[in-house]
Amino acid sequence: MDALLAVAVAEARAGLASGGIPIGAALVGPDGSVWGRGHNRRVQDGDPSAHGETSAFRAAGRRRSYRGTTMVTTLSPCWYCSGLIRQFGITSVLIGECRTFSGGHDWLAENGVSVRILDDPECVSLMTDFIAARPELWFEDIGE
Amino acid sequence: MDALLAVAVAEARAGLASGGIPIGAALVGPDGSVWGRGHNRRVQDGDPSAHGETSAFRAAGRRRSYRGTTMVTTLSPCWYCSGLIRQFGITSVLIGECRTFSGGHDWLAENGVSVRILDDPECVSLMTDFIAARPELWFEDIGE
Repeated sequence: MDALLAVAVAEARAGLASGGIPIGAALVGPDGSVWGRGHNRRVQDGDPSAHGETSAFRAAGRRRSYRGTTMVTTLSPCWYCSGLIRQFGITSVLIGECRTFSGGHDWLAENGVSVRILDDPECVSLMTDFIAARPELWFEDIGE
Repeated sequence: MDALLAVAVAEARAGLASGGIPIGAALVGPDGSVWGRGHNRRVQDGDPSAHGETSAFRAAGRRRSYRGTTMVTTLSPCWYCSGLIRQFGITSVLIGECRTFSGGHDWLAENGVSVRILDDPECVSLMTDFIAARPELWFEDIGE
């Protein structure tokens, strides 16, 4: 597995292990170092604003510029997380899979963000198993 | 002033008084009750993910549906906050002003969100004064 995706997958697995939604992410700096990493914390913190990507962004703290950064995420970013990526000028997005959910990645590509989708089987099975087990929690998380 | 906008303005003023960026918001339920309110907390919490709208959304806690809700905000929502509104199916947005910053409100309207802009002079002066006083902080907050 791609080494950066492995960081996001480890976050997703940590989220699942603590009773949460298995989506993880990492914000990676221009030099390849991890600025911040995190996972969905809706269940753990009762916080609907804590998606994987926003948790990683938050963990990276205040930054003057996001030029050259990459948001690595196990799942196609929803509109909320896609808006984050666009607003802050995050340069690239590396996505584990977009089979189980397709968010705003085409919109990001149209607006100049470099988008790469890995179609990783471990990411697919994490979400497929989770959605089958806890559909009500999944639909709550995406507002459906 | 519109009574709901007054709640968001009070949040913006509280944020300014504690050294922060003066943008406030409230998420209002279908019955007109305030589900959550908050303001930008980049400075206060060192949290770049805490915009006015996301703070109000977070304060409202976990909800099964946002049908019939209104996001009230002192300023046109940035892409990040516009994405939040779209993803969670927030029905309406009530905006104090869009003179000092224009975010994704046209995109929201195109995608079925009811958008109303009040062009409120108090909201305009809050941001005009703040941007003149702390331009570096403002541009950091919108990733420019």
